[in-house]
Amino acid sequence: MFNPLEALKDYIRFPSVSTDPAYAEGMKGARSYATGLLEQLGFTVEVVETELHPILLAERHGNPEWPHVVLYGHYDVQPADPFHLWTSEAFEPVVRDGRLYGRGTADNKGPTIVHMAALARVLKAQPDLPLNLTYVIEGEEEIGSPSMPKFFDRYAERLSKADFMLVSDTGSPNAEQIVITTALRGLVDFEIKLRGAKVDLHSGIHGGAVYNPLQALVEICASLHNTDGSVNVPGFYDDVLPVLDWERQELERYPETEESYRKMLDVPAFFPANGLSPLEAVRFGPTLEFNGIGGGYQGEGSKTVIPSEAFAKITCRLVANQDPVKIQQQIMDTIRERCPDAVQISVRDGGIAESYLVVPPDRPNTPADQPESLARAFKSAERSIEKSFGKAPIFLREGGSIPVIADFKKRAGLDALMIGLFTPKDNLHAPNESFDLGLMDNAIQAFEEIIKDIAGV
Amino acid sequence: MFNPLEALKDYIRFPSVSTDPAYAEGMKGARSYATGLLEQLGFTVEVVETELHPILLAERHGNPEWPHVVLYGHYDVQPADPFHLWTSEAFEPVVRDGRLYGRGTADNKGPTIVHMAALARVLKAQPDLPLNLTYVIEGEEEIGSPSMPKFFDRYAERLSKADFMLVSDTGSPNAEQIVITTALRGLVDFEIKLRGAKVDLHSGIHGGAVYNPLQALVEICASLHNTDGSVNVPGFYDDVLPVLDWERQELERYPETEESYRKMLDVPAFFPANGLSPLEAVRFGPTLEFNGIGGGYQGEGSKTVIPSEAFAKITCRLVANQDPVKIQQQIMDTIRERCPDAVQISVRDGGIAESYLVVPPDRPNTPADQPESLARAFKSAERSIEKSFGKAPIFLREGGSIPVIADFKKRAGLDALMIGLFTPKDNLHAPNESFDLGLMDNAIQAFEEIIKDIAGV
Repeated sequence: MFNPLEALKDYIRFPSVSTDPAYAEGMKGARSYATGLLEQLGFTVEVVETELHPILLAERHGNPEWPHVVLYGHYDVQPADPFHLWTSEAFEPVVRDGRLYGRGTADNKGPTIVHMAALARVLKAQPDLPLNLTYVIEGEEEIGSPSMPKFFDRYAERLSKADFMLVSDTGSPNAEQIVITTALRGLVDFEIKLRGAKVDLHSGIHGGAVYNPLQALVEICASLHNTDGSVNVPGFYDDVLPVLDWERQELERYPETEESYRKMLDVPAFFPANGLSPLEAVRFGPTLEFNGIGGGYQGEGSKTVIPSEAFAKITCRLVANQDPVKIQQQIMDTIRERCPDAVQISVRDGGIAESYLVVPPDRPNTPADQPESLARAFKSAERSIEKSFGKAPIFLREGGSIPVIADFKKRAGLDALMIGLFTPKDNLHAPNESFDLGLMDNAIQAFEEIIKDIAGV
Repeated sequence: MFNPLEALKDYIRFPSVSTDPAYAEGMKGARSYATGLLEQLGFTVEVVETELHPILLAERHGNPEWPHVVLYGHYDVQPADPFHLWTSEAFEPVVRDGRLYGRGTADNKGPTIVHMAALARVLKAQPDLPLNLTYVIEGEEEIGSPSMPKFFDRYAERLSKADFMLVSDTGSPNAEQIVITTALRGLVDFEIKLRGAKVDLHSGIHGGAVYNPLQALVEICASLHNTDGSVNVPGFYDDVLPVLDWERQELERYPETEESYRKMLDVPAFFPANGLSPLEAVRFGPTLEFNGIGGGYQGEGSKTVIPSEAFAKITCRLVANQDPVKIQQQIMDTIRERCPDAVQISVRDGGIAESYLVVPPDRPNTPADQPESLARAFKSAERSIEKSFGKAPIFLREGGSIPVIADFKKRAGLDALMIGLFTPKDNLHAPNESFDLGLMDNAIQAFEEIIKDIAGV
């Protein structure tokens, strides 16, 4: 009845690019398709209107005493351009060498289909499964989930009745070694603009008198790191918690060496800060990163101008216990203080996102009040994944951010069991995105077990 | 017979944008028009073919014993876009409020017409003027005079028979106060490219492990100045000559205060280095300027990437006695040395241009071997300009670069008497370029005197 591969192909064929209004039809199609699948599984689907792309809120509820899980996913995808770099059509899925190629196969349509396929199998065998299920599938994940706050305003209380959430929107190192993600980094986003003269100046006629905004910009930006690569903003590391031994031990099982990682990135050398190894630094350490800097002449060759303006787009990744609001303020204050008087500065403070941390059961830092159902789900995941993949999962913090996960915790009190189903080979957000069909099969099998364990059947 | 205003209008109507092949017809038209004017004045015109835009080499030679002056100008203009910022058509000259508006009116067609009109008057009164005249009017000044080296290969010896050159391609502060330019800054141009990973990286997944090329770039660039604004490259200032008292005294007569200059540029404050005032710094000091920096995301909002590449376009303005080849090498070495191992650097060394210095007669640093004819021309210019403009000219070094002037000196041994005929109000290289018609009249009158004085009649 539920053919996972065909379902995924059909789902991919709807080009649901949330950021581009030209894809409105694709968004609508993907939403309807997901709605159909959920209804087929016995869910009652509510299409929650938002200012942009509606959110699917689907429920299959029975006895309130049953365990209750929220499943989260998103039906939107990243833009597929540059299209000419795709070997096959981005929105016409094709199987090659055991992988399904197409935009959204791994992020996040494949994992969504995995959950649904597992559920379909469980429900087929046991239509009266004693498990309350709530699906939240949003259409704005790739653009920062702007409608989720209002969604929480309306539905947080209802969601808070669940025990925890199940999410597969994180990564694993390869198709054999699954990672259960125990933390996500937070994010602080801002942009500095410096302005010198009111117009670009001739560097011959006026060069020497004025503070070139690009010069002031590089000086301010260069001051934001120490020579050892650590962030040079007072207070930045104040609230960072130490890395625990069990976390380092889990990382040791990670199937990547520094050298294999270096070769993969093709960098001459690493530059981790604070005594962390490169593999630790991307998971356990906070960062301050220049995402874009610009000003002055951008074309070929040279142009002898002193630009009027310059900008730097900066984001920080924050680890558990760092407060993004406080960090944002500290950085703003530092930058303003370091800006010379001869240029004008303006700062756009963009979004912030809280970091998120969930500790598996039986660790030294497991919260004493961890819900029993969540502890059981963690243990089931460990056991089921080892069974279907042949290797126990690694419990590991991850460097990326999924702001909505922290929001589910903050707004509805739900922790997340995050089982990573995409791998570096999947080319997320890039041309030739694909999803490993072997991993897909194993994952469906594992989730079948996990769902049954959660239901206690 | 020679109506200067009408001649200039006709000249402007040929859109001679040298950088854009779409203006080939305009280039051809301007060239023919200038040729016609020269022939009308009795010159024999040779159209010297180049790889791009031909150079006009025109001669009116008589007795080899007569004084011999080279007049230099260019018939090409800067692009006129953005066109929508022009009040009237860029290539349809219009007089408003005593100014002629149109691309090229000030740079350099107006000054060329001034020279020709003065010559026409002198030759009308005295057709057998005992003065050998050579015109060099090139068509690639606005794109860096790439054909001049080959031109010198072929004609330097012939040009070297002249006594000096007369140039009006520099500026004066306003239409009443003429500046005779005594120096031009040299130029060193280069671009740094830094490369980290082979592709842009996700700042969440990989942030913390690698050296962001933008971070390395801002750190290298920030290291190139000291906190007082001086250039932090070993040896950079080694060959800079001290500013002499007479130069500072001339500058005191310059009709601009620091405050009026600051208001004009609309900067919050100045930032001159090495103890120079802002007005001194742009004339007497060398610079290292960031003309363009870029890397990573350039659009609206934010994108959480660690860019693969970053670049900085840098030029230095050099003052008299600084060797551009040596400086370029010093900077390259410094930058490579300061580049961290975790990124790859490549450097494009662009063009260089020598600085140029000519000292008027009777100064403490006037060369003992200054040709008598040049000394006479300087004195005539001082006298004639004071007579027609009502104010003695200021002898002043200028911040801009005209590489071809240093080349005339180096290749043909010719010093230049540079009488500045455009002003800041003229909007050079910008929309609504114009030329002051009052200044034009006074200048024609002054040049009439100067030409007669040089001829000794």
